[in-house]
Amino acid sequence: MADGERADELNELVENNDLTGIRLWLAEHRPYEIADELTRMADHDAIIPFRLLDKDRELEVFEELDPGQQQIVLSGLRDTAFHELLEEMDPDDRARLIGEAPAKVATRALAGLSPAERKMTAALLGYPEDSVGRYMTPETVILHRDLTVGRALEVVRAKGADAETIYTLPVVSDGRRLMGTVSLSDLVISDDETVLKDLVDVLAPRVRATEPVEDAARLIQEANLVSLPVVDSEERFVGLFTFDDALEVIEAADSEDMARQSGASPVAEHYVSVGVVRLVAARVVWLMLLIVAATLTVNVMQVFEDTLEAVTALAMFVPMLIGTGGNVGAQSATAIVRALAVGEVRVRDLPAVIWKEGRVGLLLGVVLAVLALGIGSLLVGFDVALVVSCSVIAVCTWAAIIGSSMPLLARKVGVDPAVVSSPMVATLVDATGLIIYFSIARVVLGI
Amino acid sequence: MADGERADELNELVENNDLTGIRLWLAEHRPYEIADELTRMADHDAIIPFRLLDKDRELEVFEELDPGQQQIVLSGLRDTAFHELLEEMDPDDRARLIGEAPAKVATRALAGLSPAERKMTAALLGYPEDSVGRYMTPETVILHRDLTVGRALEVVRAKGADAETIYTLPVVSDGRRLMGTVSLSDLVISDDETVLKDLVDVLAPRVRATEPVEDAARLIQEANLVSLPVVDSEERFVGLFTFDDALEVIEAADSEDMARQSGASPVAEHYVSVGVVRLVAARVVWLMLLIVAATLTVNVMQVFEDTLEAVTALAMFVPMLIGTGGNVGAQSATAIVRALAVGEVRVRDLPAVIWKEGRVGLLLGVVLAVLALGIGSLLVGFDVALVVSCSVIAVCTWAAIIGSSMPLLARKVGVDPAVVSSPMVATLVDATGLIIYFSIARVVLGI
Repeated sequence: MADGERADELNELVENNDLTGIRLWLAEHRPYEIADELTRMADHDAIIPFRLLDKDRELEVFEELDPGQQQIVLSGLRDTAFHELLEEMDPDDRARLIGEAPAKVATRALAGLSPAERKMTAALLGYPEDSVGRYMTPETVILHRDLTVGRALEVVRAKGADAETIYTLPVVSDGRRLMGTVSLSDLVISDDETVLKDLVDVLAPRVRATEPVEDAARLIQEANLVSLPVVDSEERFVGLFTFDDALEVIEAADSEDMARQSGASPVAEHYVSVGVVRLVAARVVWLMLLIVAATLTVNVMQVFEDTLEAVTALAMFVPMLIGTGGNVGAQSATAIVRALAVGEVRVRDLPAVIWKEGRVGLLLGVVLAVLALGIGSLLVGFDVALVVSCSVIAVCTWAAIIGSSMPLLARKVGVDPAVVSSPMVATLVDATGLIIYFSIARVVLGI
Repeated sequence: MADGERADELNELVENNDLTGIRLWLAEHRPYEIADELTRMADHDAIIPFRLLDKDRELEVFEELDPGQQQIVLSGLRDTAFHELLEEMDPDDRARLIGEAPAKVATRALAGLSPAERKMTAALLGYPEDSVGRYMTPETVILHRDLTVGRALEVVRAKGADAETIYTLPVVSDGRRLMGTVSLSDLVISDDETVLKDLVDVLAPRVRATEPVEDAARLIQEANLVSLPVVDSEERFVGLFTFDDALEVIEAADSEDMARQSGASPVAEHYVSVGVVRLVAARVVWLMLLIVAATLTVNVMQVFEDTLEAVTALAMFVPMLIGTGGNVGAQSATAIVRALAVGEVRVRDLPAVIWKEGRVGLLLGVVLAVLALGIGSLLVGFDVALVVSCSVIAVCTWAAIIGSSMPLLARKVGVDPAVVSSPMVATLVDATGLIIYFSIARVVLGI
């Protein structure tokens, strides 16, 4: 990849204020590439190349930017340019931008729109924040079920240029009730005289506009759809949710899950453009909760102080033991959180999952116990090694059960399973693991 | 969702051997729903409903199954059904199935194919395993640049039914050299007399067939493409890589990253259909390496045995301290692994990333140190609490730097950054964190 050179080049051109060079660079790159470079530049630097874009490419680049970056660019534009840009945006992208913008920007934005675009945006903003309604496009070509294929193609040719997508065409009966969809491919390939109601796929999946957008995105993925029709509570067609928006939703959801899995709140913006304080804010809450929870481990150690003083060697294996327990628990939790996210496991599978992960943990424990016995015997002698070894078996089994059941229990009570982070599982397993360890020590060593 | 009832229903129907009921259930559900239920059933049970499917739906359901499940179904089919199914499959899906099947099945499969399909499959199998070549479809409609739109639409209508996709149409010059693409939308909307070479998007992204499929999938996502044209080393068009395959590749890549992040090897199959031994095998290697690496922590504790015996209270805070360090390191590692995966951060950003994460770690450390000072003072007194508190600051900063730089260094030397798992970072930070802790203790407590 020539990534490196490309970026340095634009940076340099902007630093040298080489306007001709920038224009040339812009002409040679695709909108998403330009957007990527702009996001990586300092705020005021990004405005310069953006202003040099052709009018029609300006919009394409703008739509590829993150919401945060979009607001920075907007604030650098004069009123005419600002309103032209917003007027031209796809209604769903615009609704999300306005929904997330500060009140002042939002008012300025809505005020400048033409009545038709304002109405469309207001309608989309009426749907809940993370619902499909916010992500669908109302700019589609709607076909009546009684049309012939030939006539339908004429309608598509006449109205298609104004639509965001025409690959999936909603077919409706009277009162805009959604019957199903036809694909543009089918339309092009079919006989001109065929009537749409005989061609339409009535089993085509559909979603309510108020449903969570992540569910709709996973449905697009599972069913391999280009677009998914969206209906209101009375089954009337209101818009199409397209695969490119679904891809973004899934990427964002996966990023969120990964962040949560490490005990951090998700940060939506591009990593390079997020400041240190934002990153700290996203991570500090869980860390504080976890360190308070870790007080439990101090308490457990205090309770077993006598045991610890009698055999100091026991203390030496504490990091290894709780580390192993945490690792096993994290593996189980991660596997189950992912399986839940992609729909491979459901809440009612809880007993089956515990049974499976329990056996996995036990087997892992046995293998690791053999290793621990070897390492321990070499370092401190057989007695303590035996204690460590027995504890490893118990702690691994226990960690796998805790790690796998907690995400399912979270989902059961309506909490995002991804908040059951590896650190959370590890901290829980730490305290209980120590109790197991010292109890076994007392029995085996006869303290 | 009525998920629960749906599943129980099919299970029950199969158990009761209610063939009419099963047929009815199958007719009411979509291929991906049927595939999902089949995957969740015991192997021999899944064959029964599969055999009851209509011929044309059989293929749709089959293509939605995991490769593992596909092989189970194939092994349950008689020769005629087996060959019919393979002959009808999309060439790219078939190539991947055969590529992963045991040699005996692969030979049986290839032998039964018609010469044309066999040739196509063999060509795809010639590309490296994780390259776009394995995932692209050669069944497309290719248009010459000198055609008019009207003529091109006739070609699409005539040949489109045999193609896997016609939304993106490759436009070629003589010798099948790819000039660019036109979308079916543009074709339908444009004037009949326009010549393709004036309509074609020459900046349309393209990839070499030998490039990694994950890169191509991320490109589809970034550039919002329905399909991406694939060329050979001489820029000749060889196939299209479609968004639905890209979605699957991305989902699989994200699942792999998540598994690796928890120190497990990725398991491609559906969670429910993977056995205990497979799961243990996927997880045990890293755990063994980590427990061996954790021997370092035992060594460190031994080195500082005198310090530990002088102030037993120090031991009590070991789990809390190394837990916190591990958590901070895991957060940084996760953030950077993800930023690398989605292309927000590049290897040359290493110094910037270390500078940013170092400050994040320092700030987090200060906040957590205040908490630790409070907790420690209450439990064991100010002196030891001060040691813990200072150590928290140092360990958090150190952990953030290690956690963020390791994935970038891994990428630099050509290793998948996701193997820099949270457990690996935690184990590294454990040993070094203990050295920091006991060193600070010696200085502050004057031991």
